[in-house]
Amino acid sequence: MTAQIDGTSGLIVHKADPLNAEPPLARLRAAFLTPQDSFYIRSHGETPRLDAATHSIRVEGVPHRQSFTLAELQSQFAHRTVTAVMQCAGNRRADMHAVAPVSGDPWAPGAIGNTRWTGAALADILLACGVDAKPGWHVAFACADACELEGKRFRFGVSIPIEKAMSTDVLLAWALNGEALALEHGHPLRVVVPGYAGVRSPKWLAAITVQPRPSDNPFQAEDYKLFPADWTKETADPARGMTINEMPVNAAICEPASHARLKPGRARVAGYAVATARAIVRVDVSADEGRSWQQAELQADPSSPWSWTFWQTELDLPTGEHVLAVRAWDEAGQTQPNRPEETWNYKGYLCTAWHRVPVNVA
Amino acid sequence: MTAQIDGTSGLIVHKADPLNAEPPLARLRAAFLTPQDSFYIRSHGETPRLDAATHSIRVEGVPHRQSFTLAELQSQFAHRTVTAVMQCAGNRRADMHAVAPVSGDPWAPGAIGNTRWTGAALADILLACGVDAKPGWHVAFACADACELEGKRFRFGVSIPIEKAMSTDVLLAWALNGEALALEHGHPLRVVVPGYAGVRSPKWLAAITVQPRPSDNPFQAEDYKLFPADWTKETADPARGMTINEMPVNAAICEPASHARLKPGRARVAGYAVATARAIVRVDVSADEGRSWQQAELQADPSSPWSWTFWQTELDLPTGEHVLAVRAWDEAGQTQPNRPEETWNYKGYLCTAWHRVPVNVA
Repeated sequence: MTAQIDGTSGLIVHKADPLNAEPPLARLRAAFLTPQDSFYIRSHGETPRLDAATHSIRVEGVPHRQSFTLAELQSQFAHRTVTAVMQCAGNRRADMHAVAPVSGDPWAPGAIGNTRWTGAALADILLACGVDAKPGWHVAFACADACELEGKRFRFGVSIPIEKAMSTDVLLAWALNGEALALEHGHPLRVVVPGYAGVRSPKWLAAITVQPRPSDNPFQAEDYKLFPADWTKETADPARGMTINEMPVNAAICEPASHARLKPGRARVAGYAVATARAIVRVDVSADEGRSWQQAELQADPSSPWSWTFWQTELDLPTGEHVLAVRAWDEAGQTQPNRPEETWNYKGYLCTAWHRVPVNVA
Repeated sequence: MTAQIDGTSGLIVHKADPLNAEPPLARLRAAFLTPQDSFYIRSHGETPRLDAATHSIRVEGVPHRQSFTLAELQSQFAHRTVTAVMQCAGNRRADMHAVAPVSGDPWAPGAIGNTRWTGAALADILLACGVDAKPGWHVAFACADACELEGKRFRFGVSIPIEKAMSTDVLLAWALNGEALALEHGHPLRVVVPGYAGVRSPKWLAAITVQPRPSDNPFQAEDYKLFPADWTKETADPARGMTINEMPVNAAICEPASHARLKPGRARVAGYAVATARAIVRVDVSADEGRSWQQAELQADPSSPWSWTFWQTELDLPTGEHVLAVRAWDEAGQTQPNRPEETWNYKGYLCTAWHRVPVNVA
C-alpha cells in the first residue's frame, strides 16, 4: 500500500497549504462513482505522512480501551462497503461570495464526490470495546493533522452523535473505490459518515473517544456552524450557531461548463443532485430564469440511500446569450431557493440557490 | 365505545359535506398533545357509521388472507403507541390562494395536530399474514367512505411503499390520546403513517392489499400530487406529478391571532414547527419583514422523531401596525422560503413560506 500527494493533477487548486482543490465539473460528471484522483481535497492543515504498518487508532471512553493498527482492523472486523456522497459544507460557496464576501475558499460545485468506501463499521469496533453510551452522547475523533484556526494551533478533531455513530453505515475506511486511500484523502484511515457534511468524516484518524459532550475541538465547537444572514463574524456566538451535519437539497449543472460556447440546436445539460438520505424525485432545467422548466431524466443508485442522483436533459438553445439554471426536488417536496441572497450567511455554508451557468450560442 | 359526529364544536368549518374543519390556532397551541376535539377534520366523502363490533378489516395480497375485527386486532397483536404529527398536504393553503387561486379548501395553519396514537403495528399484522413482498412493492388501503372526484364516485383509497409499511411506527389505530376514535376521525380504525401527509393515513379502513404497484385509486394516482408553478390543471399530467408523502420544513404563528389588537410592550409570540422526522434546530421571529430576527425557545418531544416542536418568544412591539413572521430551520440546514410565490402550485400543496400575522399595537 503506497500513497503519495499526487491527487491534484488537473484539479482546480484553491490553496496549496493547506491543500484545497476540486475537480472541473465535466470531470466530476464523467463517472457515477468519482475516481479518487477526481475527488475534492479539503484539508484543514498539513498532510500527515503516516506509516500504515505502525500507525494505530486508540479507542477511549469505553470499558475496554484498545488500540488497533490498520492490519488489526482489517483482520478483526467485517469489511463493509458503502456507496456515499461526501460533500463539503462550503460546496458552491462561490455563489454566496458573489452576493457579498464570505469567509473560506470560493468552492465551485465540485467540492463533492460519490464513492464506494470500504472499511470496518465504527459500531463494530465500539461494540468490541464494550461501548456503554447513553442517548445524547457523542463519539469524538482526534486526528493527526496540525491545523491553525483564529491564530490557535491544534490537531483536527470533530464529533458525531452516538446514535449516528452506531449505525452500521459509518465506517473507518481504508479504501475508496477499492483503492487504498491516497495520502491527501486520509491515508491510512479516515472516518466516513454518510449523509453528513465532509467535515464530520475526518482524515488521518488517530483516536476515538466516547464522551457525554460534543468535541471541544474548535472545528466542532466554533467552526462549521450555520448562522442566519443577520449574524456577522463579530456578533456570531458559536454556541448559538447550528451544527452542520446533514445538508439540504442541492443540484448543480456540470455540463456545459460556465461560459461555454455552444452551437445552435440541441444542447446536452447534465449534472448531479443530492438531498442527504432523501430521494431526489425531480430535477428541472430552465433557460429563461425559471419562467419555464424542462424535466430532466434521473439516474439514481437504488442500492444506497447515501448516493447522489445524476440527471440529464437536452435543451433547444437558439443563437444568443443564455443562463441555464437547475433546481432539484426531494421526496419531501423540498426544493431550492432561487437566489443565494435567500440563504446567505457570513461563512458561506450550504449554498443551495438554483445553480446557474451562462452560455453563448453562436 | 361510542362515537358521534360532535367534533366540530368551536372549529372553523370550511365545508360541511364532506366535513372539513380546523381548530382556531390559539386552541391548537394550547396543548402539546392535541385533544381529539381540537384535531382537524379532513374528509373526502361522507362520514361512515361503522359498527365497531362487526366491522372487519380484510388483508389481501398475502399468503394467508385473513379478516380481523377490532376486538381480534386488540387481542391478537401487541398494542403500540406512537406520538406523531398528522398534517394535511393542504395545510396553510390559504396563503397560496392569496397569491393566485388554487383548488381545494383554504386551510389556515390549523390542518395539523400532534397526538398519541394507539393501535396494532401494520407490520405485525402483515407478518402474521405471511407477507412476502419485494422491494418497491406497495401496501394499498381501501376505505368505507364514498367520495366524488372530478365527477367520478368511488370509495377512498391510497397506498404507501412496503418499506414504510413495514416500519413498526405505522399503526392501525383505534385510539387517539387514549380515547376511542370519534366517528369523524375514522371510527373504529384508521391508518396512522407517521411522517407522511395525512392523506396516507386513511380513516374508516376496510381492506389492506399488498401489491406490486401503488393504488390506482384516484386519490393516489391523480390527486395529492405536487407540480411546479408552471403546470396548470389543464396541462398537469398526474403521472408526472410528485407523490406527496413526507412534507417540508414548516412553522406557524398561533399566538397572537391574525389582526389581534395588542397593548404596547412585551408580546408573547408562539407556535409550532415541523420537519417530518428531522429535528427542528432553530426558530426565528421577525417584526420587520426579515431584516432582523429573534431566536425563539423550543419545546420538543425527545421520545418521538414524529412529534412537532413548540416554540415561543417575546417581542417588544411599539405602537403601530406590525407584521410578525416566523421561519424554522431543520437539522439539515433547510429553512423556509420568504414568499408563497416561490413554491406556489395550482393545487395549493405544501405551503411553507414564512407565516405572517398582522397585528395592531395601540
